[in-house]
Amino acid sequence: MLSRATALLVCACVVGQVSAQTFKRLGGCPKLGCLFPPDQTDFLAGQFFDIRLEVHAPINGSEVFNGGVPDEKFTLCIQSGKGPCQSATKFFSVKEPALEKWTFSYYEDLFAQDSKTPTTVNVAAKAYRGLALTKPGKYQAKLKYYGGRETVANWVVREPATRRKAKNVLFFIGDGMTQAMITAARLIAHKSINGHYQSLMQMDQMDNLGHQMTHSLDSFITDSANSATSLYTGKKASVSALNVYADSSVNSFDDAKIETIAELFRRRIGGPVGMVSTAVIADATPAALCAHTRDRNQFPQIIQEYLLGAASVNGTIPWPTSCDGPDVVFGGGAENFIAGPTSPGGTDYYKAFQAKGYNVVYNNTGLQAVKNDKKVLGIFSKSNMAKWIDRKIYPANLRNQKNSPTGDGTDAVDQPGLKEMTLKAIDVLQTRQKKKNTGWFMMSEAASIDKMMHVLDYDRALGELLELDDTIRASIAHLKKIGEYENTLIVVTADHGHGFDVFGGADTKYLAAQTDSRKKRNAIGVYESSGLSGYTVAPGSLPNNDTIVFGSEGPNFPVQWNPRYTYAAGFGANPDHREGYAINTTNPRLPAKPDATGDNQVNPSDQPDGFFVEGTLPGDQPQGVHSLQDVSVFANGPGSEAFRGVYNSVDIFFKIADALALGSNSRHH
Amino acid sequence: MLSRATALLVCACVVGQVSAQTFKRLGGCPKLGCLFPPDQTDFLAGQFFDIRLEVHAPINGSEVFNGGVPDEKFTLCIQSGKGPCQSATKFFSVKEPALEKWTFSYYEDLFAQDSKTPTTVNVAAKAYRGLALTKPGKYQAKLKYYGGRETVANWVVREPATRRKAKNVLFFIGDGMTQAMITAARLIAHKSINGHYQSLMQMDQMDNLGHQMTHSLDSFITDSANSATSLYTGKKASVSALNVYADSSVNSFDDAKIETIAELFRRRIGGPVGMVSTAVIADATPAALCAHTRDRNQFPQIIQEYLLGAASVNGTIPWPTSCDGPDVVFGGGAENFIAGPTSPGGTDYYKAFQAKGYNVVYNNTGLQAVKNDKKVLGIFSKSNMAKWIDRKIYPANLRNQKNSPTGDGTDAVDQPGLKEMTLKAIDVLQTRQKKKNTGWFMMSEAASIDKMMHVLDYDRALGELLELDDTIRASIAHLKKIGEYENTLIVVTADHGHGFDVFGGADTKYLAAQTDSRKKRNAIGVYESSGLSGYTVAPGSLPNNDTIVFGSEGPNFPVQWNPRYTYAAGFGANPDHREGYAINTTNPRLPAKPDATGDNQVNPSDQPDGFFVEGTLPGDQPQGVHSLQDVSVFANGPGSEAFRGVYNSVDIFFKIADALALGSNSRHH
Repeated sequence: MLSRATALLVCACVVGQVSAQTFKRLGGCPKLGCLFPPDQTDFLAGQFFDIRLEVHAPINGSEVFNGGVPDEKFTLCIQSGKGPCQSATKFFSVKEPALEKWTFSYYEDLFAQDSKTPTTVNVAAKAYRGLALTKPGKYQAKLKYYGGRETVANWVVREPATRRKAKNVLFFIGDGMTQAMITAARLIAHKSINGHYQSLMQMDQMDNLGHQMTHSLDSFITDSANSATSLYTGKKASVSALNVYADSSVNSFDDAKIETIAELFRRRIGGPVGMVSTAVIADATPAALCAHTRDRNQFPQIIQEYLLGAASVNGTIPWPTSCDGPDVVFGGGAENFIAGPTSPGGTDYYKAFQAKGYNVVYNNTGLQAVKNDKKVLGIFSKSNMAKWIDRKIYPANLRNQKNSPTGDGTDAVDQPGLKEMTLKAIDVLQTRQKKKNTGWFMMSEAASIDKMMHVLDYDRALGELLELDDTIRASIAHLKKIGEYENTLIVVTADHGHGFDVFGGADTKYLAAQTDSRKKRNAIGVYESSGLSGYTVAPGSLPNNDTIVFGSEGPNFPVQWNPRYTYAAGFGANPDHREGYAINTTNPRLPAKPDATGDNQVNPSDQPDGFFVEGTLPGDQPQGVHSLQDVSVFANGPGSEAFRGVYNSVDIFFKIADALALGSNSRHH
Repeated sequence: MLSRATALLVCACVVGQVSAQTFKRLGGCPKLGCLFPPDQTDFLAGQFFDIRLEVHAPINGSEVFNGGVPDEKFTLCIQSGKGPCQSATKFFSVKEPALEKWTFSYYEDLFAQDSKTPTTVNVAAKAYRGLALTKPGKYQAKLKYYGGRETVANWVVREPATRRKAKNVLFFIGDGMTQAMITAARLIAHKSINGHYQSLMQMDQMDNLGHQMTHSLDSFITDSANSATSLYTGKKASVSALNVYADSSVNSFDDAKIETIAELFRRRIGGPVGMVSTAVIADATPAALCAHTRDRNQFPQIIQEYLLGAASVNGTIPWPTSCDGPDVVFGGGAENFIAGPTSPGGTDYYKAFQAKGYNVVYNNTGLQAVKNDKKVLGIFSKSNMAKWIDRKIYPANLRNQKNSPTGDGTDAVDQPGLKEMTLKAIDVLQTRQKKKNTGWFMMSEAASIDKMMHVLDYDRALGELLELDDTIRASIAHLKKIGEYENTLIVVTADHGHGFDVFGGADTKYLAAQTDSRKKRNAIGVYESSGLSGYTVAPGSLPNNDTIVFGSEGPNFPVQWNPRYTYAAGFGANPDHREGYAINTTNPRLPAKPDATGDNQVNPSDQPDGFFVEGTLPGDQPQGVHSLQDVSVFANGPGSEAFRGVYNSVDIFFKIADALALGSNSRHH
């Protein structure tokens, strides 16, 4: 009897291919002919992009074909609406690009990896550079190869908005921020009496609420490069890729590029652009505003792209658009500016920015003092910037880091927070747009929500989230003060989630007093025993004390971070680790460490009072990983109604582009 | 030096009390004088409620007071706006209630529990029954005791809507359903090509999106009784309480009651009411429509309350409102109807319903055949009803259950699903409202999303979620067909979450082939190795095959449930268990079992191929538990715009009541 589960209403008779899931020959290319941008791509009218074509000939493995000889005579035609399919060269009025050839290998599955049996693929390829589709409507691109084979991509150029609604765009990203984290942050920072909050998060009070789906082109879990590419270009991409469709070649800079919202704002409107992050400023989320590479780890080249454009990195490959030096660049990552092995060309890149007219600042004092009329580069630490909890609650932790952005070996103790950077960035952008009244575009990222969730340091992650919320609140107030609030579209969202949630309370005193791991677990109270937030009352008070008090950081932050009764939280995905549920008062958590074989084991010095939790991740993962869930979108201001409801991450790009009328052909290029 | 963390801007000088978090003397009562409804309560104009007063005198422990003698001369006064505080008897024109006295014990913390040192409290108490506040505005209730002590409650009667927007209300509850689960259900049931879904969940397509906060009166994690009370009455409550404020007495039925949306709809409009659930029909979420008890486990009394009202359960305590026999009662739990130890008074309660004019049906055939003009009781199984996956994919699992609702020892193989029950309920309610054109109110619950998440049976939980989505889709179509769609407010939400999320893919073949637990973990692919959904392609096809096919259940459900490449998911909160990430084809998971001491250990027969995951919960918890995160709200129809944005669970009650104008004093009582 046929099992009901396999009784298909429609039979898709594909047989024989069972591999290529954990590892893929090439993401977004199930067939032997690969066409990027792939099927289902939507474009903004006039947005620049490259086309990459590849024909694969595996010489072994389950897809072995044509004796390993790829078809070099493949062709591409493009069809607009119901018109004829014209050759790409004619359709775009470009020359036929040169044929490229290379070879790559991959494992078909984990068994192949264990037995060290790679599959090798010979490739014939071409790339068409710097194209654009301006007429709204439907298109089909057809790659023909190996005689009768075809790979088809259906493309849509969306009807662009013709009226500009928003003068300015302030785009906040809480990296890795899920609704469960926002709820947890509310719990610890806002006082509830008998189940009624007496104050709320700024995010709770935004005018419009939406959800966006964060999955990527070729995997359902995304990284931050991939997801930022979707948010900024309106195109789904692959893990680690910044504004390119990843191809199978070794070169990280020859992949098919896509124009970003920041490049479009620069090119079409000519207004000032700002990037602000608490991470290394070459990190994925800021990098995706202006950089194009298949490998997000190419930090020196990414920094060079900020200043000189993508075409400067690989001179033989043209790219007709760039951020042209963002007007504001604030973040960490001094190691990519101080002359040395991790700076562009080994040169002093502070000087390169100064030569292009930038003021450069290295600390909060300098940031506050710098004038608003010139471009500003602010690099405030080596590596990622200090966390809010360490700056505000445990400032001693900023000592002995030797992370001064000048490279002089001192400690970066005078670092601004996200709020200080964002408010200053508004002032610089506002001043610089005045001459032509262009408005401005800024992305501001609370990067360490993600970085601290990765290391299961829930407290630091929530501290960063509360700082983001405080930054949004302060930005709204500042925009009102300077008369720009009504002109500014404010969008707050995340790029992906972490499978974090609070599931109870923990009595840390009882937990620490037990010696047996199972008895330690009894310190966790669930349901009615979860109790109330210990974070919103004065030390020594009962959690159900109904007096409203504020801690040293004022309203909207916890009164205390280290109460006896804490929240208990966790991940579905975690490395081996220990849980004690008390804040790490010294430095961020390091939950697991690799042993001599590289297998990550519990870190003996992390949460020594805690109980052991066996991980659910492969031993090569020392941290938690990203998760699937849709993330929230909050929006205020002109055009913000479009952010209601449930939609794909790529739609964020189109909604912002429409608020700015960036797709309108009535504007100059 | 004073640590910055403890440098308070406002000093709340409460000292000495450090306990009562894991366990509470009485939730919602931090002082020795307790007043319910408590501070911060909002009322619908004219909504019935009781007042409960308690004065506590602990005879030992940290709060020992007055030699253990409670003040019996306590007084209550009520103040409307800035008027005088009038004695409660005068304000409400009621007689002074009798003084009650009792004693109870509790543990102050886990150390006290370990040392078996309870704290004992003597209580003097009173209760005022069946009150209502009809004039919108602010009120203060003041309990005075022990001479100068005072417990104050600020109450608000909200300004009611005067215009009725919605004729009918269809209220769906996905029990325990978070956005992470909706995203996972979308992943397995809807085909994505290059990151673009080719179809969507019905929930994704609803007109209005909101978030609600699920925390409770006295704990931040809720159970389903507590949270349903908030949704149906607009009042925060305590774990296990159904439409009452839990007091400290032993009697489960003498606690202070609150009128529900169903009782209000019955009393003010006189229209038909429906309750539909896949759980035992006396379970918390349906029970909270019509029952009033401090203990959700009083199933026989709850069923009796459905038919005869709350006043019938404890004859000495009046309650002036009831559901008066809901017109539709569909679900499981035959053991509360078949004459025996778990039926009301040991009697045949099918007969009791029949005597009140109900048609009674026991299977889907009977359900489809029964006429729509009379009230209908449909009980389709003992215990909870069969899961969608077992009914549709693995029907052999319905055999040998001996769960026929008639009690004849046969198997309940002809069970309807949520969709069949809900569509039939619409027809009955629609027919029964016709005479007076009253419209109708229905609650339909997908109960086993929660029940299956509790046992970490992710597949069955997602099957239930997909059935809910299919039910919403079919209900919209049916309402359109009968011409009632434009008249019907449809609200879809959850009552709380579970800390579930998908974090990668799992190669179940590789996992099963490994013998070492750490090697099994290597079968999990994260980020780019998460790959694509194996559930939306035909068996034997590649996940990235872009042909759209449907399985035996048609669109909106997985093509296959048991692909080689599955999703990998998990909980932050879990008992000891094993993870193999393959579907349980036989019966729902039982992840852990108690040993001889009651300590829950991994169940040897659950996921035998899987790797061991040490739990994060106390050993007395055999299942996962609820979590904190806000849950989504989706709404269509008249009045649905009010469900946008972020709000408290209790606001759901007021939004529905306003759509129905239930708070208007222009309507008869």
